[in-house]
Amino acid sequence: MKLNVYLAGQIHDDWRSEIRTKAEEMNLPLDFFAPMENHDRSDNIGEEILGEQPNAIAKDDAASSMNNLRTRILMQKADVVIALFGENYKQWNTAMDAATAMTLGKPVILIRPANLHHPAKELAEKAQVVVETKEQALQALAYVFETE
Amino acid sequence: MKLNVYLAGQIHDDWRSEIRTKAEEMNLPLDFFAPMENHDRSDNIGEEILGEQPNAIAKDDAASSMNNLRTRILMQKADVVIALFGENYKQWNTAMDAATAMTLGKPVILIRPANLHHPAKELAEKAQVVVETKEQALQALAYVFETE
Amino acid sequence: MKLNVYLAGQIHDDWRSEIRTKAEEMNLPLDFFAPMENHDRSDNIGEEILGEQPNAIAKDDAASSMNNLRTRILMQKADVVIALFGENYKQWNTAMDAATAMTLGKPVILIRPANLHHPAKELAEKAQVVVETKEQALQALAYVFETE
Amino acid sequence: MKLNVYLAGQIHDDWRSEIRTKAEEMNLPLDFFAPMENHDRSDNIGEEILGEQPNAIAKDDAASSMNNLRTRILMQKADVVIALFGENYKQWNTAMDAATAMTLGKPVILIRPANLHHPAKELAEKAQVVVETKEQALQALAYVFETE
Amino acid sequence: MKLNVYLAGQIHDDWRSEIRTKAEEMNLPLDFFAPMENHDRSDNIGEEILGEQPNAIAKDDAASSMNNLRTRILMQKADVVIALFGENYKQWNTAMDAATAMTLGKPVILIRPANLHHPAKELAEKAQVVVETKEQALQALAYVFETE
Amino acid sequence: MKLNVYLAGQIHDDWRSEIRTKAEEMNLPLDFFAPMENHDRSDNIGEEILGEQPNAIAKDDAASSMNNLRTRILMQKADVVIALFGENYKQWNTAMDAATAMTLGKPVILIRPANLHHPAKELAEKAQVVVETKEQALQALAYVFETE
Amino acid sequence: MKLNVYLAGQIHDDWRSEIRTKAEEMNLPLDFFAPMENHDRSDNIGEEILGEQPNAIAKDDAASSMNNLRTRILMQKADVVIALFGENYKQWNTAMDAATAMTLGKPVILIRPANLHHPAKELAEKAQVVVETKEQALQALAYVFETE
Amino acid sequence: MKLNVYLAGQIHDDWRSEIRTKAEEMNLPLDFFAPMENHDRSDNIGEEILGEQPNAIAKDDAASSMNNLRTRILMQKADVVIALFGENYKQWNTAMDAATAMTLGKPVILIRPANLHHPAKELAEKAQVVVETKEQALQALAYVFETE
Repeated sequence: MKLNVYLAGQIHDDWRSEIRTKAEEMNLPLDFFAPMENHDRSDNIGEEILGEQPNAIAKDDAASSMNNLRTRILMQKADVVIALFGENYKQWNTAMDAATAMTLGKPVILIRPANLHHPAKELAEKAQVVVETKEQALQALAYVFETE
Repeated sequence: MKLNVYLAGQIHDDWRSEIRTKAEEMNLPLDFFAPMENHDRSDNIGEEILGEQPNAIAKDDAASSMNNLRTRILMQKADVVIALFGENYKQWNTAMDAATAMTLGKPVILIRPANLHHPAKELAEKAQVVVETKEQALQALAYVFETE
Repeated sequence: MKLNVYLAGQIHDDWRSEIRTKAEEMNLPLDFFAPMENHDRSDNIGEEILGEQPNAIAKDDAASSMNNLRTRILMQKADVVIALFGENYKQWNTAMDAATAMTLGKPVILIRPANLHHPAKELAEKAQVVVETKEQALQALAYVFETE
Repeated sequence: MKLNVYLAGQIHDDWRSEIRTKAEEMNLPLDFFAPMENHDRSDNIGEEILGEQPNAIAKDDAASSMNNLRTRILMQKADVVIALFGENYKQWNTAMDAATAMTLGKPVILIRPANLHHPAKELAEKAQVVVETKEQALQALAYVFETE
Repeated sequence: MKLNVYLAGQIHDDWRSEIRTKAEEMNLPLDFFAPMENHDRSDNIGEEILGEQPNAIAKDDAASSMNNLRTRILMQKADVVIALFGENYKQWNTAMDAATAMTLGKPVILIRPANLHHPAKELAEKAQVVVETKEQALQALAYVFETE
Repeated sequence: MKLNVYLAGQIHDDWRSEIRTKAEEMNLPLDFFAPMENHDRSDNIGEEILGEQPNAIAKDDAASSMNNLRTRILMQKADVVIALFGENYKQWNTAMDAATAMTLGKPVILIRPANLHHPAKELAEKAQVVVETKEQALQALAYVFETE
Repeated sequence: MKLNVYLAGQIHDDWRSEIRTKAEEMNLPLDFFAPMENHDRSDNIGEEILGEQPNAIAKDDAASSMNNLRTRILMQKADVVIALFGENYKQWNTAMDAATAMTLGKPVILIRPANLHHPAKELAEKAQVVVETKEQALQALAYVFETE
Repeated sequence: MKLNVYLAGQIHDDWRSEIRTKAEEMNLPLDFFAPMENHDRSDNIGEEILGEQPNAIAKDDAASSMNNLRTRILMQKADVVIALFGENYKQWNTAMDAATAMTLGKPVILIRPANLHHPAKELAEKAQVVVETKEQALQALAYVFETE
């Protein structure tokens, strides 16, 4: 058995690589899916495909339709979602992706520093598992495969 | 025909009263549902019902289970959701409630100032209607009832 | 028992009034829902609420988000959908609304002149009932209430 | 990961071959499904299997039941649907297939020339992505697989 | 609380009247829905609305589309289905209606004489309640309302 | 707005009357549904309706089909479920009803003494709210209606 | 692409072997699932596993629980269902299996001799394809794979 | 065809090994999934991953979130569930897992000694198959694969 894991969260640093590396070190049979992690490309993909747009909002609309196409297809394939919250950025997409997964019946593992628990408390209550580190998230997934 | 409208968004000021008042002025047949708008009570409701908790996270967990009970029941009754984003606060619950409604197939009207379009662009793309003011949100709902 | 009926089809003439009148004459306990039947208003509703848009496509996008809000809410309330096809106009919205209803499990009564059967044949095959006139559509609904 | 793509649209020319060829050139891991593209066969398949029918409508009914069997089975297997609209033909089946996919929760990429945006505006609003060319549709799908 | 009950079964005698009468005598808060119980009308309704058909099968097709419209609408409103099987007639519609209700998650009360248990055994196993008489079926429904 | 509440739990004492009384005292707009609370009747209802059965298991099967008919119909009407666990009885039906409600997407309020938390911990984790007393369960429901 | 086909119908003769053989001759990529075709075994499977039962109805109940376990699992795996009706036997299970598949959204190909159309007319109207012979049913499936 | 089987039940002895061994001896193409069978580990997994918790209830909450993550993922993959009840332990999780599977539409095979039928009677009525021994449960699954 292999599991597909969607990694929801900001795309400003390489936290997903860390998870991918650790998962390999732990020999976990996981396939990871993610949004476009190149932030500029994610912002420009609409114009890249559709050409220049009349204004910033139209540019955003074009980009977000491509980003959401990607997320919808990959989320549909996911068995479980890891959603990471941190100190920086608005992270509304992280909350959106986490809630989408929860409503689709897919279990969500929420990673957030303890000091962010208060603003994330309703999300935490709906998550299947709440942890503080990426390693703990992978340990939770490792537990699914262990038999003793 | 009457419609039930859930008002998702921050609970730090009285934006919902404004909407309720305007809707009445416009004679719209709308019933509004909302989270607990008394912010302190929303934070303390867990301890209020369950007694003192061992630490801040346990207090949050207790409160969020009550708040989510409320949201789940009221969201289930809603025909449409208005989700308001503004300059302040993390607003992760707003994103969570909006995405939950979208995934349940309930149409969402997103209110956000134009300058917040970029961080809200993926939410906007999934929303049924995107506007800048509360009045516009109600005009969109009024249009559902109009016949000419 | 009353039934809610959504009337899908072009908004260039007053075919819906005819149905409403006949239904009243036949004393049928039906409530009718419909898209905005004022064609200009339907085209302009986006700019009416959101203000002038940068170009024709943006104007269309704004209008269609309002029109689809209306259709989604009203379709959700419908027990049955009447979809009328005629000689004129592209009628892609009619096909879209009919297919949406079919996929949601709502029975569709298709009205089309016999000579349009060929291009509508796959829609007809998925419709619950296929008739040629508005009167026949109402007779089909009348039959639901009759007991002998 | 491979994706199954259903190609909805008219069956009067070979636009699907173009897409298949381009996708191969772009090395995209896509499997394409489509309606019967031989137009005569699509019209005659009912009589071919069931024998001569009493009249043109019965012939159409027989054919459409076979065509819809095919579409239902293949659509069910699809991860994403490309729906192409052009200047000619009624294209009610294209609208029907697109709306069916949307209602089933499958993302739809709409291809239409810009000048057809007005009649397709409600379909466009419900589509996940709207483009003008087949190449752009494939670029949108390519983006799902890209990581930087 | 009132319950809607769909009465599935043959339409050759007046077994439904018996149920309606008994239910009234027992003061049960039940609303009954049923197929057209006038057998001739049920067979002719297609031609009655659509005009003469080219052959017997086309006549049947026309009638069955009207009958199924009725059943779909009324079944959707039902909280529970009573399906009666007896010695005579093929009763394929009874089996079809019962299985449709079961698959939709609606509880089915199966009435059949004990000696028909063998051919109805798979239906019985999927039914919520299996009884031999109409009176027992109503007693089962009465039990839903009783509190001691 | 009124809410329907299903009261899942053992039927050996009158804990439900306490809840009903308290809810009335608190003026809560709640309608309560419950299994048959007369324990003997619940055990005998199968034979009461169907006559004497060949053995104890057949008697149980007959009774449980009637009890489950009741639970399915009433659970379907419920907006929220209160499930009470105590020191005595196996309470497998309580666990079954709670899990059924959870899986149907209905929020569950779990009442259990603190010392039973360990065996109920997986149920508690899936419940929306966990409390120790009936009063707390009603306070949680009261909170849904309060606005300040 | 391979398709899974469930063969619903009586188990008194070897009509399924004919279908399997023909499908192989036609090189169709189909996997067939079916109920237990050994009629005696189907009747006795309950007692075979559970031991002697107190009476004929209990024996039937035991057998039907095993037969329905099999059908549920295999039907869930099916992409399409062929349901064959003939002159003999009650065939209530055939109607039940066909209606179950229809309600689950699985396309059904109905095989029945023309002279049985009248009693099967409502089933026929809900079927995706109606044919008279096993060969025609396979031709309909072959058409799903053909591209010209 | 292979089937995935989730083994719900207590984790105090090695009843699952017995099933695995027998299934291998019978050459059944079954893959088995189960909760963590090491009871201590199941109790401690929360603290193992998240660190020491402030009290016993918090420790339980942490553990149950990990255990439920595991169950949700594995249950989702299951084609069928075997739920075993015995004389000892509360077995609320067994009832919860069985009811969850039933509500998700997955067939459940209930194993219980005959003398426990009374307290398990409502669960038994909702199960697809009820047996007394592990061997009988496997025979029921073997029957799904047999063809004569």
